[in-house]
Amino acid sequence: MTDSANQTDIDLTDRAVFAVWSRDLVRYRDIDPNGHVNNGAVNQFFEDGRIGLRDQRMAGVQPNLLTGFAVVNFNATYRAPISYPAEVEIGTVVLKIGGSSFHLGQGVFHEDRCAATATVIQVYFDPKTGKSNTLPDPVRSALEGAMVRA
Amino acid sequence: MTDSANQTDIDLTDRAVFAVWSRDLVRYRDIDPNGHVNNGAVNQFFEDGRIGLRDQRMAGVQPNLLTGFAVVNFNATYRAPISYPAEVEIGTVVLKIGGSSFHLGQGVFHEDRCAATATVIQVYFDPKTGKSNTLPDPVRSALEGAMVRA
Amino acid sequence: MTDSANQTDIDLTDRAVFAVWSRDLVRYRDIDPNGHVNNGAVNQFFEDGRIGLRDQRMAGVQPNLLTGFAVVNFNATYRAPISYPAEVEIGTVVLKIGGSSFHLGQGVFHEDRCAATATVIQVYFDPKTGKSNTLPDPVRSALEGAMVRA
Amino acid sequence: MTDSANQTDIDLTDRAVFAVWSRDLVRYRDIDPNGHVNNGAVNQFFEDGRIGLRDQRMAGVQPNLLTGFAVVNFNATYRAPISYPAEVEIGTVVLKIGGSSFHLGQGVFHEDRCAATATVIQVYFDPKTGKSNTLPDPVRSALEGAMVRA
Repeated sequence: MTDSANQTDIDLTDRAVFAVWSRDLVRYRDIDPNGHVNNGAVNQFFEDGRIGLRDQRMAGVQPNLLTGFAVVNFNATYRAPISYPAEVEIGTVVLKIGGSSFHLGQGVFHEDRCAATATVIQVYFDPKTGKSNTLPDPVRSALEGAMVRA
Repeated sequence: MTDSANQTDIDLTDRAVFAVWSRDLVRYRDIDPNGHVNNGAVNQFFEDGRIGLRDQRMAGVQPNLLTGFAVVNFNATYRAPISYPAEVEIGTVVLKIGGSSFHLGQGVFHEDRCAATATVIQVYFDPKTGKSNTLPDPVRSALEGAMVRA
Repeated sequence: MTDSANQTDIDLTDRAVFAVWSRDLVRYRDIDPNGHVNNGAVNQFFEDGRIGLRDQRMAGVQPNLLTGFAVVNFNATYRAPISYPAEVEIGTVVLKIGGSSFHLGQGVFHEDRCAATATVIQVYFDPKTGKSNTLPDPVRSALEGAMVRA
Repeated sequence: MTDSANQTDIDLTDRAVFAVWSRDLVRYRDIDPNGHVNNGAVNQFFEDGRIGLRDQRMAGVQPNLLTGFAVVNFNATYRAPISYPAEVEIGTVVLKIGGSSFHLGQGVFHEDRCAATATVIQVYFDPKTGKSNTLPDPVRSALEGAMVRA
């Protein structure tokens, strides 16, 4: 569960691999003392990409089935600085589906450039017990629909 | 300098009064445990509105003249909750110009609704001494051009 | 309800007036491109002060009575910059109690210096209807216990 | 440079391996809609740990030698939720030093529990050209002094 998620041969700097897209606007508050968007803001962009996957692909799934996702591993590579102001696009794709967890690949893009990529492991768990849980069928189906096209 | 900025008879819930517009996208991270956008995020929207005034109306002003603005009073009224996801628009207008300071009026709008308004006092100061400074003419002209139309 | 909260003759730069204290540590992420703690971070300190009032003075109040507080007016005066690293202390006091709302006074202090003060109006409302509600007696009692000592 | 940083056999959940310690206080704003500290806040704790390494171990290094660090890979494992309020401690240790980059190991601890660990690759670069640069000797010495004790 805590293995690195980054053993992927998918090129996450290539926009063509992603199944779902979200977008964000850079805020003045995102800039750090170096004048660039802080990595913490880039991490928020990745988070909005994951919520975009949920909102766009699991809209029909019962709400109570969607409360139990947790990120257990987040492995980000920052490739190019982003300035203010800017609009960024975040691509998200499902890389792998296990019994109670799944792996995502993500990319943050600014204009023609890939600014950052990440692989993420999310685990499905029971909020009451805190223990991992088998992925419900409607969630699994939605995830399968967001996998890399062969 | 620390007087309240809110003695204004301008209706800041009326989109028609604003001179400059900015926009922001709500992020998942903006939501607080109550499920609404936290006021701290709304305050970031107001900040982006102020930077929008600077970027849109003072682009021709020498950069070194633009480093000395500080907010000394921020008086916000939160009028309606904002949910995720949403795009917001921020209107900003100059209400009053003094010797070394100026007053702004701002409104955050979501669709047809005014979610929050604010009045803000900014002081122009010398970053080296930390003391307030007379507004340079090009800054004053730019501010005059962003005042409420009579 | 949206009147300015700042008609107070209490000196909020004086540590002696506060009933409840909280503290925060400045984070690197709080620094803005000018090298000082961004006002948005100072606003988070004020928020932690308000939560401190709730946690320290309303611990015995039924949890379901504590879900309906909303800030409707936040009026902050920023008096001195804060640097990184630093520990800040936040003082909070109840200034006025109405039927369904109350006014708070707050101060953020760094060492011997008052960095910012704020007056805040909070309204008690019914989360289901979104309408303001009479303050429940146990909440009113707790607020009375955190008023300025005459 | 963008290889995963997590090929380490150091146990980052063990407080004994760290060379430098920082601390942070959880803020109300750190809590996400699930009632736990959002991973983005945990990432800020890791950032403060890295700044702690710089401030505690490179205080004597010329400031202009310290401006060119960038995180190029951040690989975090979230192990246990953190609640509000809480004080956290962040341990940081140097795992490996290359020609122009170095690897860090980090752990965020709350009371007896390790809440998260991370491995991080930072590159030293020339802010003017944006290209990686050989680590200056005083920086290298400071990093060597913060390595895991054999």
